[in-house]
Amino acid sequence: MTKHIFLAAVASLAAPLFAQDAPDGSPSPNEIVEQADAEEWVQIAPEDLLVMTLAPDAEGNVREVVIQLMPAPFSKGWVDNIRLLTRSGWYDDISVNRVQDNYVVQWGDSNYDNPEAEGEAKPLPDGLKVMEERGYSTNDLGSALAMNDFAVTPDPYAELSFFNQGWPVAAEAERTWPVHCYGMVGVGRGYSPDTGSGAELYTVIGHAPRHLDRNIALVGRVIEGIEHLSGLPRGKGALGFYEDPAKRTPILTVRVASDLPEAQQPLFEYLATEGETFARYAEARANRRDPFFIVPAGGADICNIPVPIRRTALSE
Amino acid sequence: MTKHIFLAAVASLAAPLFAQDAPDGSPSPNEIVEQADAEEWVQIAPEDLLVMTLAPDAEGNVREVVIQLMPAPFSKGWVDNIRLLTRSGWYDDISVNRVQDNYVVQWGDSNYDNPEAEGEAKPLPDGLKVMEERGYSTNDLGSALAMNDFAVTPDPYAELSFFNQGWPVAAEAERTWPVHCYGMVGVGRGYSPDTGSGAELYTVIGHAPRHLDRNIALVGRVIEGIEHLSGLPRGKGALGFYEDPAKRTPILTVRVASDLPEAQQPLFEYLATEGETFARYAEARANRRDPFFIVPAGGADICNIPVPIRRTALSE
Repeated sequence: MTKHIFLAAVASLAAPLFAQDAPDGSPSPNEIVEQADAEEWVQIAPEDLLVMTLAPDAEGNVREVVIQLMPAPFSKGWVDNIRLLTRSGWYDDISVNRVQDNYVVQWGDSNYDNPEAEGEAKPLPDGLKVMEERGYSTNDLGSALAMNDFAVTPDPYAELSFFNQGWPVAAEAERTWPVHCYGMVGVGRGYSPDTGSGAELYTVIGHAPRHLDRNIALVGRVIEGIEHLSGLPRGKGALGFYEDPAKRTPILTVRVASDLPEAQQPLFEYLATEGETFARYAEARANRRDPFFIVPAGGADICNIPVPIRRTALSE
Repeated sequence: MTKHIFLAAVASLAAPLFAQDAPDGSPSPNEIVEQADAEEWVQIAPEDLLVMTLAPDAEGNVREVVIQLMPAPFSKGWVDNIRLLTRSGWYDDISVNRVQDNYVVQWGDSNYDNPEAEGEAKPLPDGLKVMEERGYSTNDLGSALAMNDFAVTPDPYAELSFFNQGWPVAAEAERTWPVHCYGMVGVGRGYSPDTGSGAELYTVIGHAPRHLDRNIALVGRVIEGIEHLSGLPRGKGALGFYEDPAKRTPILTVRVASDLPEAQQPLFEYLATEGETFARYAEARANRRDPFFIVPAGGADICNIPVPIRRTALSE
């Protein structure tokens, strides 16, 4: 089975690792995850996966990005729009238009609201929902986290932050919302009351811009291939937009994984965030005792506890 | 005067910005900074700046990275080593060997402790200090922050975090240490008790890996040109090391800015973190009320309040 830990930013910094054997010590967060029982892993429905294929890179390498969409009750109208935009082929032949360092990569129709537009904006399909700002958060989880959700405190941005159904969320006053961690995918919008349709998307490629929480709809996260976006040249225009249209990266196709032939469907699973292993993993992220570390931090913010996600064997 | 705000991740996400005039509203954090009096800006001594020149990119563009070294009492022995390594030419003709997504870019001698080494490791200059782990933090600031330091709470990683002399730091039990925010530069090391010499350096290119605080020496931050590092292709080997030596980016030279001819010395200044403007800026980062925002967050973590830094006119 191929393991692919989401955002595997957990290894030590030691170049001398090559030359030295690690001293004995407690397991690392990754080692804890590797020991999880098979039943602690939850398969992600192919209906919840998007496969975005960029034009090959300068050396001809394939560039594929896999995005997991958020489950209900989060951002449902926008997620429905994104499936509709995907299935109508609307995302095919758009481009990555903006790369702002330590912030976001954004993709969409370069002719949409762009003074440098070279042509007509692409017409949107019928049937898109118009969402209200209230949808940036939900009260469907009730007034508190479920008994088995893993909570993280303190959080400078909310009364409470925790993991629900494998996702990082925060809550206050009976409302819960997804949070802007690295790799999360959101919906670009104009000024209020515009909430965006889903035609313009971005992903976070820097320190968590949590000030965007509750101000924009989050709809998913990149679970594979983010390096094809985060490693793109930064745009030199305002907000990181490319001034030179030739710098944009073409997006060839976007497909819902369940619409692909079965043999081509990528299969992923995430570590249940209600399980015992996730609790041990999160504790170890907050208190590193594996050999490289001297002083355990004594805490971690929710975005420094990435949910482990891996490809499963069938999809290789 | 050319303004260059460090890590300017403060603008809105709205593509429609192009087509819409912003509604009236409170000033953005950047606008607050632009209104600061001249005397709130503090010049950075050229002795504290390193200019690192990478090989030109594939299109022949110059790639220059400017690093600001930390002031006393932080990491002084390592910072001394780094000036010595620079002035002895040791960093010339080394390379960027590791790019791990959402974590770090690391540079040094690719023949150092590397099983794929193609040659002998480069001998280090005489006079390097051997530092102790206790040096990862300092008690020279006393038992608490100064009256005029700007504090940030809560912090999941420390009792207190605040800005001192323009730098993000955290404190606990009479000890204070610099923190791993985006763009901070640190010293690679092996297993304890090794503390690294400064010959192997890294910078953070993802969500703040605060679990490294007090476990590695932080020595500075990238204040210009980080996109030349953060936009590099990710390494495919363990920890993001390049498996193919041809993927490494050559570092041509590193110079202390004060050793350059005066006309070539880059000049930068930072917004005093003890001043009134910084307090207003930090408050606005925590509570965005500029036109794009609907819900102010009510807080911010210390790494989401980047210290404003800009080039001054003479250096253009």
